[in-house]
Amino acid sequence: MNELACGLGESAVPGEFASPPRGPKVVALGGGHGLYASLSALRRVTGDLTAIATVADDGGSSGRLRRELGVLPPGDLRMALAALCGDDEWGETWTEVVQHRFRSEGELHGHAVGNLLIVALWELLDDPVKGLDWVGRLLGAHGRVLPMASVPLDIEAEVELDGVISVVRGQVACALTPGRVQAISLVPPDPPACPEAVEAIEEADWVVFGPGSWFTSVLPHLKVPELARALHSTSARRMVVLNLAPQPGETDGFSPEKHLEVLREHAPSLLVDAVLADQSVVDDPRALEKAAVSLGGRLILADVAASDGSPRHDGPRLAAVLDEIFHEKR
Amino acid sequence: MNELACGLGESAVPGEFASPPRGPKVVALGGGHGLYASLSALRRVTGDLTAIATVADDGGSSGRLRRELGVLPPGDLRMALAALCGDDEWGETWTEVVQHRFRSEGELHGHAVGNLLIVALWELLDDPVKGLDWVGRLLGAHGRVLPMASVPLDIEAEVELDGVISVVRGQVACALTPGRVQAISLVPPDPPACPEAVEAIEEADWVVFGPGSWFTSVLPHLKVPELARALHSTSARRMVVLNLAPQPGETDGFSPEKHLEVLREHAPSLLVDAVLADQSVVDDPRALEKAAVSLGGRLILADVAASDGSPRHDGPRLAAVLDEIFHEKR
Repeated sequence: MNELACGLGESAVPGEFASPPRGPKVVALGGGHGLYASLSALRRVTGDLTAIATVADDGGSSGRLRRELGVLPPGDLRMALAALCGDDEWGETWTEVVQHRFRSEGELHGHAVGNLLIVALWELLDDPVKGLDWVGRLLGAHGRVLPMASVPLDIEAEVELDGVISVVRGQVACALTPGRVQAISLVPPDPPACPEAVEAIEEADWVVFGPGSWFTSVLPHLKVPELARALHSTSARRMVVLNLAPQPGETDGFSPEKHLEVLREHAPSLLVDAVLADQSVVDDPRALEKAAVSLGGRLILADVAASDGSPRHDGPRLAAVLDEIFHEKR
Repeated sequence: MNELACGLGESAVPGEFASPPRGPKVVALGGGHGLYASLSALRRVTGDLTAIATVADDGGSSGRLRRELGVLPPGDLRMALAALCGDDEWGETWTEVVQHRFRSEGELHGHAVGNLLIVALWELLDDPVKGLDWVGRLLGAHGRVLPMASVPLDIEAEVELDGVISVVRGQVACALTPGRVQAISLVPPDPPACPEAVEAIEEADWVVFGPGSWFTSVLPHLKVPELARALHSTSARRMVVLNLAPQPGETDGFSPEKHLEVLREHAPSLLVDAVLADQSVVDDPRALEKAAVSLGGRLILADVAASDGSPRHDGPRLAAVLDEIFHEKR
């Protein structure tokens, strides 16, 4: 079984969430492994879950597909679908297929099968959302996955190294350029949002930002104008789930409070209700609390990291804390 | 809707075969469009259908995949599965996906999505039959599709042109070399059969050869030793469904009786119970009847061609005739 094939890990009781209870309407924003982590937790606490994933990847299988076929990069969407996969043999097998990558000396090397499947559905149905919904049905997904925008995006980042600021374009370049990212913008700067994503945010009870690559997976949503408007105007409560470690080349040396500061710089009028951080990675709780309050919210410190010491969230622990927050028990 | 996306064409009553009646155990042998045609008819008359498809293609998407990944060429298997697809929205949509081909200027151009899906399942499950069964479940297939052999094959053909005989290797070369094929053999000459295919033949009530490319889709099964043994020893009745037109480069100028003669040359002791031919393409019924009798069987002339005059079988007409033959009404 692929490590990332299914959202419920070893600690899950089989069948436990076959019929998850309805719960709050939750929208999770992010991309890549960060969104995979939040969805792996959120699927345990609500039956009404929508993921809105970035479509700015320009590397690997996704980058090749957007260049060759002019489609949205499917990788972040595929990962999110895999995190929501059904936990029976059917859902698990098709998720393994979707996550499988070809390894060869030839033209297919590195392509994820799910990327090819998503793109084929897009070509056939000419509708990104319908295509993703069909893959969701295939996997028996516990939730819906939507793209952040209806067109492929590029991220342009200002990167500072030794006092010198340079501008790099593309998610791969952002990740590879040494230094700290200062700010990001999108190319094109005003992409059309996915209408279903705007609607999901407007109707949500909770919107969850992060965890994930801060500049390339979490903040880009705030730079899509219609999505940003919905994120500001929704009556949903907003939560930020902070990362467990800085990301080399992107947020080297960033404290947790620095992450919130950067969020405010990218969306100065956005109010946040709750900031969730793992207590083990917070050196200065008072500074972080102050940063949370300055966004309009409160700080929640909890034990949500994996017990093996690796910088990743533990699904069941994160789920338990999120459940308490959603039900105002914490 | 892709022309070849679903076995039931426009003339089908939706849902008519959602629960096909159990019927005789039928095994259909062939490959490509010919096997697609026989399956499109057979699915209408039995609920116990197994297709055994050639694995000797070396062109197009299948050829690239066998060379790049060392797998069985999946194309004939994919086509057979598509012919058996479920006739609800689920089955039809996934069959469209499976039959979809990428079109681009790049590395994916020409690959059929179903080929990639089948190969991914083979890599994951390490079992060709299990992988095909999973795709069959995805499509809601009305029957099972098995490979002729457990290893990729090449066809070697003796081709005669203007009295000169040359030997060519590979299905593409057979099709492209001008002249008439005289005989074929396999490389390797003694490939292992797929055990489930042997078993299906042994347990069948009827085994159906053709229609299809005579030398590259219909006769190869008789050159796989274990399959040939089962085809000779089975208690099933055997039927040959003749083509509606000679195939350029392969059977130029071949009469229907010449097809039977070639069959006998490739399997001298094989007895056949019935030979089915469309009456419009038989110039000399007596000669054909004599050829059928010399194989141990009888000739059945019927109206099974498409009414538009194209050299393809009409699914419902062929089904009606097969049903009468299976139930000894003709």
